[in-house]
Amino acid sequence: MADEQTGAVTIAAIAAAAGVSVPTVSRVLNGRSDVAPRTRERVEQLLRDHGYQRRGGRARTRARLVDLVFNDLDSPWALEIIRGVEDVAHAAGVGTVVTAIHRRASATRVWLDNLGARASDGAILVTSALDPELDAELRELQVPAVVVDAAGVPGLDVPTIGATNWAGGLSATEHLTGLGHRRIAFVAGTPDLWASRARLAGYRAGLEAAGLPFDADLVVDGDFGYASGARAADRLLALADRPTAVFAANDQMALGVYEGIRRRGMRVPEDVSVVGFDDLPEARWSSPPLTTVHQPLAEMGALAARTVLRMVDGEAIESPRLELATRLVVRDSTSPSTAAHGGPDDLRGAPPRR
Amino acid sequence: MADEQTGAVTIAAIAAAAGVSVPTVSRVLNGRSDVAPRTRERVEQLLRDHGYQRRGGRARTRARLVDLVFNDLDSPWALEIIRGVEDVAHAAGVGTVVTAIHRRASATRVWLDNLGARASDGAILVTSALDPELDAELRELQVPAVVVDAAGVPGLDVPTIGATNWAGGLSATEHLTGLGHRRIAFVAGTPDLWASRARLAGYRAGLEAAGLPFDADLVVDGDFGYASGARAADRLLALADRPTAVFAANDQMALGVYEGIRRRGMRVPEDVSVVGFDDLPEARWSSPPLTTVHQPLAEMGALAARTVLRMVDGEAIESPRLELATRLVVRDSTSPSTAAHGGPDDLRGAPPRR
Repeated sequence: MADEQTGAVTIAAIAAAAGVSVPTVSRVLNGRSDVAPRTRERVEQLLRDHGYQRRGGRARTRARLVDLVFNDLDSPWALEIIRGVEDVAHAAGVGTVVTAIHRRASATRVWLDNLGARASDGAILVTSALDPELDAELRELQVPAVVVDAAGVPGLDVPTIGATNWAGGLSATEHLTGLGHRRIAFVAGTPDLWASRARLAGYRAGLEAAGLPFDADLVVDGDFGYASGARAADRLLALADRPTAVFAANDQMALGVYEGIRRRGMRVPEDVSVVGFDDLPEARWSSPPLTTVHQPLAEMGALAARTVLRMVDGEAIESPRLELATRLVVRDSTSPSTAAHGGPDDLRGAPPRR
Repeated sequence: MADEQTGAVTIAAIAAAAGVSVPTVSRVLNGRSDVAPRTRERVEQLLRDHGYQRRGGRARTRARLVDLVFNDLDSPWALEIIRGVEDVAHAAGVGTVVTAIHRRASATRVWLDNLGARASDGAILVTSALDPELDAELRELQVPAVVVDAAGVPGLDVPTIGATNWAGGLSATEHLTGLGHRRIAFVAGTPDLWASRARLAGYRAGLEAAGLPFDADLVVDGDFGYASGARAADRLLALADRPTAVFAANDQMALGVYEGIRRRGMRVPEDVSVVGFDDLPEARWSSPPLTTVHQPLAEMGALAARTVLRMVDGEAIESPRLELATRLVVRDSTSPSTAAHGGPDDLRGAPPRR
C-alpha cells in the first residue's frame, strides 16, 4: 500500500482498500461534513491502520507558506486579492507565495515542481486556475486548496469564495432606475464566467423590478477590457433611441465607456450616467469618480487565507461555497436622468459637442 | 568563534578575526569587486579555516524562494514590480513570497521570523523598506538583498535598482515646451524620496533648456496621491497667470489633476495639457488616455530578481547601482498650447464652464 519511492501510504491506496473514491478520502482528510458516518469511520480506521500522515497533523512540519495562484497578474484586481491574503497569512506568521501560470500547462508544471521541492501548507487559486488535473495533483501533494471567484468548473470538491454578483447587478440597475433612467444599457463581461452571467441576470431583474422592458439592443458584449467598453459606448451612443445610462460589468469597461462618451464630445454624468463593478482603486481615481458596485476583493482574499489555514489545521469547513456581499458606492458618475424631467426626446439627436 | 546555538561561524566573528568590518566580510562573501585584494585574501582564508558556509555555495540547500518586500500593497505600482519579479523567479523554478511590512517594526519582525523558520534564497526590498537594522539581520540570516527604487538611505552596501527619474522629468518637460507651452506647472511627489527630487530637477532642466524661467508659484507639493493632485490643480488654476500645462510626478496625481480641471468645467487637453509619470495601467484607462513617462517597473522587478539570483549563485555584481531608462509615451492628454497661437491672455480669466 506504500508508495515505492517515499514509503508513504497514498490516498489512492486508502481509497481502493476502503472501496470509495479518492475525493471521498480527501473529504475525510479535510474534515468535510458531507461524508456518510459509516464511510468516514471505515476510511479513518484504514488511515490509522496504515499510519497515514494526515496533512496539518501535529506531527507534520509546517512549510509556513501558502500559495496564491493567478492566471495573470495584469489587473489591479489581482493586487486587491494579494493584499487580503497577505494580511491574514502574515498575521499567522505564514508567507504568501504569488504565482502566475498564464493558463499554460508548462508554467503550472514549473509551479508544481517548485511547490513539491519546497512544500506549501495550502493553495489559493484565483478564477479559472483550477482544473480537475491540477486538483488531483494538489491532492497527491496533500496541499488543501480553496478557489476564489470560481469560473464555474463543475465537480471540483474544494471550497470556493465569491461575491454576490447577482445582487450587485441588481443594486446597480436599481440605482439607475431610481434616478429616473428608463433607457439603461449593459456592457457584459466575458460570457463564459459565472460572474458575468450573474451580473447580467441582476441587471435584468433590476429592469423587471422597475417595470422596464428588456431591450436586447441595449446589451453589448465586452471582454472586461477598457477597449471593449469604449467600443460598446460607440455602438450604444449611435442608436437612434440611445441610452441615458450605462452599467458596465466591471470598472475597466466603465472607464472605456467614459472614453467613448468623451470622444463624442459628451460628458459624464451630464449626458450619460455610468456605473461600474469591482470598485478598484481606478474607480476612485477616475474623473469623475466612478459610481460602482464594491466587490470585497481584499476580504475575499482574507477569507480564502483564513479558510485554507483552517483546513491546514484539520478543521471542518461548513460550506463549500461562500459569497461575500457587494454594495453600491455612489460617486459622481451618475445623476438624475434629464430625459425623465423633460421627456425622452430631449437628448436624442443632440449633436456631438465637438 | 562559533555561534553557541547553531555551532555556525558568524560573519561578525570572521570580521573581528580579520580586523575588518562586517560589511567588508559581506562584500567578500557577495563577490563584490570593491575590496582590496589583500583584505579579500585574508578574509577568504579565515572563512576557509573556520569552515564558514558561504551562502549560495553548492553545499547549501536552496530554499527555492525569493522574498519580495513592500511597505504597502496599495498601488498598482506594486503589482507591476510583482509581475516582473515573479516572471523571472518562476522561470528559474523559484517561488516569490510577497510581504507588506506597513513601515512597522512588529510586521518586519513577523516577516523575519517566518523567513528564519522556512529559509529564503534572497530578498528584494522595495523603496524604503530597508534600514540599517534590517540590513544587519538579513546579513546574519545570510540572505542577499537587492533594493528597488531606493528611498535614499545612505551607507547600505546592497545593489539598488532604479529608473532614470531625472531624464524622465526632463523628457516630460521638453515634450510640453515642444508643444509651445510656456507656463508649465509641476506637481511634486513626497519630497523625502530621491525619485521625487530627481523628477523635479529634470523639470527644472527642461525649463532651462527651453529658456523658460523657473517660477516657484508653478510648483506645488503633492504626496503621490490622487487627492493631492486635485488640490494642486485647484490652486494652479486659481492663479492669475495660470499654467497651460501640468506635469505631475506620478500618474495618480495626474489623474487628480484631471479631476481638478473637470471640476472647474475645463477639459483635458483642450484647456490644460497634463503629463504623468509611471505609466501604470491607469494611464491607458483614463479619459483621455494619459501622456506619461514610462517607468519600466516590471523590468526593474525582473532585473532585481535576476540580480538576487546571481548573488545566490555567488556571482559578483558589477555595479552597486543600476538605472533603467524611462521613456515618454504620448497619448491624448497633451496638445499644442492655445496660448502659443493666440497669446497668453486667451484663456486667462475664462469663466468656469459649470
